[in-house]
Amino acid sequence: MNEAGIETLTRMIISCIKEQESSQTGFPVPVGVSNRHIHLTKKDVETLFGPGYELTKKKDLMGGQFAANECCTIVGLKLRAIESVRVLGPVRSKTQVEISMTDARKLGITVPVRESGDVAGSSPIAIVGPKGAVYCEEGCIIAARHIHMSPADAEKCGVKDGDYVRVRANNERGSIFEHVKIRVDKSFTLEMHIDTDEANACEIAQGDKVYIIGKEG
Amino acid sequence: MNEAGIETLTRMIISCIKEQESSQTGFPVPVGVSNRHIHLTKKDVETLFGPGYELTKKKDLMGGQFAANECCTIVGLKLRAIESVRVLGPVRSKTQVEISMTDARKLGITVPVRESGDVAGSSPIAIVGPKGAVYCEEGCIIAARHIHMSPADAEKCGVKDGDYVRVRANNERGSIFEHVKIRVDKSFTLEMHIDTDEANACEIAQGDKVYIIGKEG
Repeated sequence: MNEAGIETLTRMIISCIKEQESSQTGFPVPVGVSNRHIHLTKKDVETLFGPGYELTKKKDLMGGQFAANECCTIVGLKLRAIESVRVLGPVRSKTQVEISMTDARKLGITVPVRESGDVAGSSPIAIVGPKGAVYCEEGCIIAARHIHMSPADAEKCGVKDGDYVRVRANNERGSIFEHVKIRVDKSFTLEMHIDTDEANACEIAQGDKVYIIGKEG
Repeated sequence: MNEAGIETLTRMIISCIKEQESSQTGFPVPVGVSNRHIHLTKKDVETLFGPGYELTKKKDLMGGQFAANECCTIVGLKLRAIESVRVLGPVRSKTQVEISMTDARKLGITVPVRESGDVAGSSPIAIVGPKGAVYCEEGCIIAARHIHMSPADAEKCGVKDGDYVRVRANNERGSIFEHVKIRVDKSFTLEMHIDTDEANACEIAQGDKVYIIGKEG
């Protein structure tokens, strides 16, 4: 074996040892399970709930967000509906509806897996409130799983904003999520966000701990 | 480093190289997505559909099983119902209802993840047909994912009945299923069975290929 070969092998050994170590311990992250929800612009809040209307807080969420008392009905292209979909506040610059693939099947529509905010070319959806309706040409997505963390946690874990990691749920069913994006901001509390399909399929409940077992790429 | 250390390291290197190789190639397995369904005893078929009634075939499935034309409504302990649940034939020695965790949440009941047939102490469920109802003290499970294969495929893959393997779905979301049980029988066609939650959460459709990337334990 030549020197390059030995070097490659050494690098493989090190990465293998690191992976074995981290799969035992890993970097623990509590899970937040996101049910279907709606983000609205100020304009759309007024269309749906009446002029001058402001969302009212039901429960604080991380990063200054909150679950609002307000709910809407969403209707897909095949005119099938899901009722009582929670609105999250505060208002955003773009209206966005986040559902699971199970929801997409119920609505009979094809919805892309996207990062929050990346709605260009996503699925059309209608939102109906007590005072009006909004038809969005795009804005319906299945949220891609991701991990929120503070700069301090990112340093501890050895990752940075935009990195992709592998995450293990070490339970009865046993799953490893690949391609999980790290999002770092000082307003963020450490939490991995998955949707209800992922939670149900992998037997993960709100607050359960999963483990970052390695960086990708 | 002493000899034991070198031996351990060698074993790690080999397993690491094998894993790297197999994660590229792996042993391909087509996926069958199981929607909620019911297996019935002959006695329960007659209770639900009338004396002397026999299930009628809608579509052949693997291993001599078939989807029947008959459907029932299932009702959980909280009296919530799911309608039009497909019956599979032929009749079995024990009645068993297989649902997803999403279904369990809809019914408001706690259902264990089990191998098919292992219903002792599982959840109570009522089954209602056009001519009668059956109340099962136990029999409702969430089916544990597993892989069916013929003895020839098992030999090719290097596994045996009862082994547990890790399986990669190498797609946009990217998932690895751990603790996947191998079931070998000469009546079996190669197929990994997952439920609708797993399919939706991991973006896997009927017939998609996943890859066995290693044995566990």
